[in-house]
Amino acid sequence: MSNAGKEVVLGVDLGGTKILAAVVDREGNIIARNKKKTKAQRESGEILERIETCCREAADAAGLPLNEITAVGIGSPGPLDPIQGVVLETPNLNLSNAPIAPFLNEKLGVPVFLDNDVNVGTFGEFTYGAGKGKKHLIGIFLGTGVGGGVILDGKPFHGASLNAGELGHMKIMAYGAKCGCGQRGCLEAYASKTAMIARIQKRVSKGKISLLTEITGGDWTKLTSSAFVKALEANDKIASREIQRAAKFTGVAVGALLNILSPEMVVIGGGLVEAMPDEIMPIIRRHAEMNCFPIMYQKAEIVPAALGDDAGVLGAAAIAWKRSAEG
Amino acid sequence: MSNAGKEVVLGVDLGGTKILAAVVDREGNIIARNKKKTKAQRESGEILERIETCCREAADAAGLPLNEITAVGIGSPGPLDPIQGVVLETPNLNLSNAPIAPFLNEKLGVPVFLDNDVNVGTFGEFTYGAGKGKKHLIGIFLGTGVGGGVILDGKPFHGASLNAGELGHMKIMAYGAKCGCGQRGCLEAYASKTAMIARIQKRVSKGKISLLTEITGGDWTKLTSSAFVKALEANDKIASREIQRAAKFTGVAVGALLNILSPEMVVIGGGLVEAMPDEIMPIIRRHAEMNCFPIMYQKAEIVPAALGDDAGVLGAAAIAWKRSAEG
Repeated sequence: MSNAGKEVVLGVDLGGTKILAAVVDREGNIIARNKKKTKAQRESGEILERIETCCREAADAAGLPLNEITAVGIGSPGPLDPIQGVVLETPNLNLSNAPIAPFLNEKLGVPVFLDNDVNVGTFGEFTYGAGKGKKHLIGIFLGTGVGGGVILDGKPFHGASLNAGELGHMKIMAYGAKCGCGQRGCLEAYASKTAMIARIQKRVSKGKISLLTEITGGDWTKLTSSAFVKALEANDKIASREIQRAAKFTGVAVGALLNILSPEMVVIGGGLVEAMPDEIMPIIRRHAEMNCFPIMYQKAEIVPAALGDDAGVLGAAAIAWKRSAEG
Repeated sequence: MSNAGKEVVLGVDLGGTKILAAVVDREGNIIARNKKKTKAQRESGEILERIETCCREAADAAGLPLNEITAVGIGSPGPLDPIQGVVLETPNLNLSNAPIAPFLNEKLGVPVFLDNDVNVGTFGEFTYGAGKGKKHLIGIFLGTGVGGGVILDGKPFHGASLNAGELGHMKIMAYGAKCGCGQRGCLEAYASKTAMIARIQKRVSKGKISLLTEITGGDWTKLTSSAFVKALEANDKIASREIQRAAKFTGVAVGALLNILSPEMVVIGGGLVEAMPDEIMPIIRRHAEMNCFPIMYQKAEIVPAALGDDAGVLGAAAIAWKRSAEG
C-alpha cells in the first residue's frame, strides 16, 4: 500500500523506558509504528537524538519521506512548557530545560508540538477515543502515580503556569495520607498503585494473608494489574478491599471536579481500570454521585478509557493535527 | 450633569432581601444607583415586575431613557441557565423556571444577560477589581454559604450543566463534616459562617466562654463579621480558633484549585475577609502553598476582593458589557 499523498502526522509517546512513535492519519488510523529504548539516564543530547531517530524510522516504516509529514506531536512527562516546546524537568528522564520541539523541528524540518503526557492521553481520548464529540472532558489515569488532563472548549487547558491539570495532587483529604510529592491528602496517596502496594505490604507484614503474596512471590514490584485480576477472581479480601478503596477515593475526586468544572465526560484510564472496568467504574460513579450536585452528575458521563496503550501516540497525533491547524 | 450620549449599562444584583441596580459606564464608574426590596416570597411575576421597576428607576436616576442603555446584566442566585436567561430555582427566592432575561428584554426593550451571582461577583473583580488584566481567575466568597466563580480565558466558565463553579461544595475532606447540601466534606462545611457559628454554639453550650456570647447577646444570628473583629481584638480564643480553621480549610481548597486549574489569581471575598484581610489572607496563602505544587503557587496571586458591596452590580455591568459585545 502506498501512503503517498495521504495526509499524516507523527505521534510520539516519550516515556521513561521507551519511545513510541506512530504515523497517524486524520481519522486516527495508525499507518506505521516504531519503538525505541529511551535510555533515560544518558545525556540529554543523546535522548533527543534517539527521539529524532525514532521519528525518522517511523516515517520510513510508513514509506514516507519526512516532508510528507504534516507535523509531529509529542507527549512527555512534565513539568514542561507546551508553548516553547521545552521539557523543564522530569523525575524519570535526564532532561532539564530540554528544547525537544525546537530541536526536532530543526532536525526534521517539520512543525513539532509538545504537551504533557497525560494531557496528550486525555486529548487522544477526546479526539479518537471515549470522548469523541465532547467539548469539556477530564482524564484521570491511575497508574504508579495518578495523572490528570483537562480539556476545556476542545483544547488542553494549561493555566497560568502552563502546567494545570495536576489532578493526582488535588487534595481530597485535607492533611490526610502522605503522598510521594511531599504533601498530604492527594488523590495519588489514595488511588495510585504505589499507595495500594504500600498498604497491602504493610498488612501482609502484619500477618494478613493475601493471594497477592503468592502471585508476586513476595516481590511487590511484580504486583501488576493482572495479578490484581487473579486475586480478585479468587475473592482475595486484601486485594478487593484496596481496589474498592482506590476506586472510592477516585470517585470523591471526580465528584469534586464535577462540582468545579462540570465537564461532559470524565475518562478514567490506567492498567487497573482497563483490566477490570466492571469492578472499578461502578464504585467510581457511585462515589462521584455522592460528592457532587445532581445537575453536574446528570450532565457527565464517567467512562473507562478506550484507547489503551495507543492513547499516547494517538493523543500526540491529535495534538499535532490540532495545533498545526491553529498555525 | 447630563449623561446623554455616554455609553452605559445597567447592572442588577438580585438577592433574597434586596434588588440593587446601578447605571455603570465602561470604566466601571457608577453613575446612579437604585435599591428595592425583593419581597422574595411573593409570586414570581411580582418579583419580576419589581426587578423591572428597579431598572426603570435606576435609569431615571441617571436621567437616561431606557433606549440609551446598551444592555442589562443581572446576577442572581442559581442554579440558572445563563444562555436562556432563566433562573431554574433558588433556595431563597420564589423563582422557579423564571425567564428573567426574556421578560426584562421584552419589557425594557434592551438586551438582558443573566448569570449566577457568584460568577458575576467574580467577573466584577476580574473586570474592575482585584483581577484587572488577568486571564484565568477564581473567586471564592465566604459568607453564610461559600460561593465560587471560575473565569477562564477571560469569561465565566459554565461547563456542561451551565452551573460549574460550585466551589463551596468541592470536597476537601472525603466523607468529613456534614454540609447543608446534604453531602459531606464540602469546603462550605468548614469555611462558611453557618459552619463556624454551629461549632461556636456547640462549644459555648458545653460551657466554653467566648466574648461572642456577650456581643451577640446569645442570639447567634447576630454573629456578624464586626462581632468577630471585636472578639479578635479582645483575643477571644474561640473566635480566633474558628477563623483560623475556616481560613486553613479555604487555603486547602485554594491549593487544590491551583493544582487543577493553575489560575493567575484567586480572589477571596465575603464579609469576614473584607473585615480582617490581614488576619485571614496570610493563613489562606500558607495553606494554599502547602497544598499545591510550587510552580502553581508561584504563578498565582491570592488576594482579597476589592469591590466590596459593589461587586454584584459592577459584575453584572461587566457581564452586560462583555456579552453585548459578543452579540
